[in-house]
Amino acid sequence: MERTDGEETVVAENGTTSKDGSICGFDSLHRLLQASLTPQLFQEVSRILLGLNCGKEVEPIALPQPVKALSSEHDFDLQAFSFSADRESLRGPRIVRVGLIQNSVALLTTAPFLDQRRAIFQKLTPMIDAAGSSGVNVLCLQEAWTMPFAFCTREKKWCEFAEPIDGESTQFLQEFARKYNMVIVSPILERDVNHGETLWNTAVIIGNHGNIIGKHRKNHIPRVGDFNESTYYMEGNTGHPVFETAYGKIAVNICYGRHHPLNWLAFGLNGAEIVFNPSATVGELSEPMWPIEARNAAIANSYFVGSINRVGTEVFPNPFTSGDGNPQHADFGHFYGSSHFSAPDASCTPSLSRHKDGLLISDMDLNLCRQLKDKWGFRMTARYEVYADLLTRYVKQDFEPQVISDPLLHKNA
Amino acid sequence: MERTDGEETVVAENGTTSKDGSICGFDSLHRLLQASLTPQLFQEVSRILLGLNCGKEVEPIALPQPVKALSSEHDFDLQAFSFSADRESLRGPRIVRVGLIQNSVALLTTAPFLDQRRAIFQKLTPMIDAAGSSGVNVLCLQEAWTMPFAFCTREKKWCEFAEPIDGESTQFLQEFARKYNMVIVSPILERDVNHGETLWNTAVIIGNHGNIIGKHRKNHIPRVGDFNESTYYMEGNTGHPVFETAYGKIAVNICYGRHHPLNWLAFGLNGAEIVFNPSATVGELSEPMWPIEARNAAIANSYFVGSINRVGTEVFPNPFTSGDGNPQHADFGHFYGSSHFSAPDASCTPSLSRHKDGLLISDMDLNLCRQLKDKWGFRMTARYEVYADLLTRYVKQDFEPQVISDPLLHKNA
Repeated sequence: MERTDGEETVVAENGTTSKDGSICGFDSLHRLLQASLTPQLFQEVSRILLGLNCGKEVEPIALPQPVKALSSEHDFDLQAFSFSADRESLRGPRIVRVGLIQNSVALLTTAPFLDQRRAIFQKLTPMIDAAGSSGVNVLCLQEAWTMPFAFCTREKKWCEFAEPIDGESTQFLQEFARKYNMVIVSPILERDVNHGETLWNTAVIIGNHGNIIGKHRKNHIPRVGDFNESTYYMEGNTGHPVFETAYGKIAVNICYGRHHPLNWLAFGLNGAEIVFNPSATVGELSEPMWPIEARNAAIANSYFVGSINRVGTEVFPNPFTSGDGNPQHADFGHFYGSSHFSAPDASCTPSLSRHKDGLLISDMDLNLCRQLKDKWGFRMTARYEVYADLLTRYVKQDFEPQVISDPLLHKNA
Repeated sequence: MERTDGEETVVAENGTTSKDGSICGFDSLHRLLQASLTPQLFQEVSRILLGLNCGKEVEPIALPQPVKALSSEHDFDLQAFSFSADRESLRGPRIVRVGLIQNSVALLTTAPFLDQRRAIFQKLTPMIDAAGSSGVNVLCLQEAWTMPFAFCTREKKWCEFAEPIDGESTQFLQEFARKYNMVIVSPILERDVNHGETLWNTAVIIGNHGNIIGKHRKNHIPRVGDFNESTYYMEGNTGHPVFETAYGKIAVNICYGRHHPLNWLAFGLNGAEIVFNPSATVGELSEPMWPIEARNAAIANSYFVGSINRVGTEVFPNPFTSGDGNPQHADFGHFYGSSHFSAPDASCTPSLSRHKDGLLISDMDLNLCRQLKDKWGFRMTARYEVYADLLTRYVKQDFEPQVISDPLLHKNA
């Protein structure tokens, strides 16, 4: 794991070598391959890696000049694409413009908490304005966006960042929702005042009129690496709600839930057309899984997925150990960004930068979800009754796995 | 879809252009990137694409010279790798050598069926010998390996290739199993004589003493593109058996079952350590899904996956339509090979050729499965009782999805 311990990591473009001689990582796989391969080869590689072929292009979208100016002025990556879908005879297209924001923290984690919160509101303002001014209909922020991802420390003081679902961060976003007629998904650390100040990892769904439509609490909690999240909150008790908004049926699979195919499945069974996966995850631990799991979920469940990961390295005041025998240190490692969209037809957009803040926008015709269900028939052929029965038996103490042993197993070879 | 209609497709190495001026496809993504990128960049790209990093290398294995000679003489791709795992203090390593064979048909589909079957036995003999001589412990062949993948035709005459599980192909393989002390997984079209000559798509599990350990019948049947397989057989009735062999617990997820996360899950719940996915699938339809689904299954279920796809284009005597409005034609398109192994730590081997017959071998320490369960805790955090309940409700006619509608949904914007 990359350890910077307070020093800024030197990041070079296109995978060139940093000052200390190590490879410090390219900005995005897509850009790297595009720069390194001939156009013909890049097209072939894209066909497999991004699922782009035969007219199924993910086309870049032109954004208004003021939005580009915001991106330059505030130095965030800005990319926009459009997924294709067939025209239907009996339904008009249902094109929705969706946005994802990834960002690093705004201040050092040693700054007063009130300053940290103010600074992150201030930092996000031009990015949310850029989304709104681009006509984004549904915007999702990253996991626990109001705070540093402090769970590695196991220190309880970070609980102070928790807020009720109608707290300050929600109020901050409600104004943007009203101004831009935009649905906003806001993943925060929630304080459940009506249930004894319990904490949850929660996504608040703010409607395009600024109203709170509802909330979803993270279903699956990691106990891996520095992700000591079960120290702070428990498994969610809100099921797998799908929120019917002005722009389609959306759901939120928070962070570690992306490793659980059943969690993805449940949002699909409840009718989701877009599932967001706001995350916070670091390089060595999960980066090879990142391009796999969201795309698999989009394919298997015939919906769109928007994946978000924060960026940068967050250094904490007190060093901590990681349960791996290595010396104490003060950071989690590098959050590698790489936010992207996946579509049910196995295509996906290029990812945002691995190092920079960014806003990713994509147009998607939600009709594509049903088109893929009709084409591949995954729902029709799923035999859910077989699995309902299996899981019902599995959760019982006396479950016996279906194992057929070779009767000659202990015969000498 | 690539249509060759009887003509041999011209295949160029490294994605260069074929005689007719189109890009006809590179041989393997791994080889293409290795040839096109600097070693440093290739290492970084491999870290993400193949999950290789920080000592988690997939190392090439040296094979005996006579095996290499077989590969040259009979012109099949031969690759061998080793996955790494940690050494444990209380268990010795459980290293198993596993093989996958991909191949094109041996004769034209117009040849007499008896000749076709003899020819495929003859073609596979040096490849199975190469596996056995390499010390492979468990070998899996491709789906319906005894016959052309004729289901596109919807003609019933191809049913003649079906055999009982102790039929000629099993007898053919039992000799190799005994000779090489090797478990062999043999996916065939099965004729169930004791149940009214019913056909199934079945994997026969042959033990290392040549005994038949059992069978598994394909659980999920496609109705997509030219894959008119429900014309020939029905959904399997054998559940999700795991076969306890001399070399570990194995299972078989046949072809289209790879699109169903629940199918993968069920083999995992029953204790599989290696799940084979013998397949037959063509370029435009599924190639972007191919690198995604098997790796996701390996990650999510903490087991190894061996993915096999046949190669080449099979041209049938009578033209057929594909239900897509296009003119009749006589082939399925190109089976793109690309067989590979995926590991529970998100690493995977390079793939075999997209065009040539091949034998892929990999050493894997089955201890890695439990190591990943302990590290990531996916089983522990899975909350199966939630999903047992959801699926039990879902399969009922009166299931109501969990939808929270914005009460302002129909207010004017």
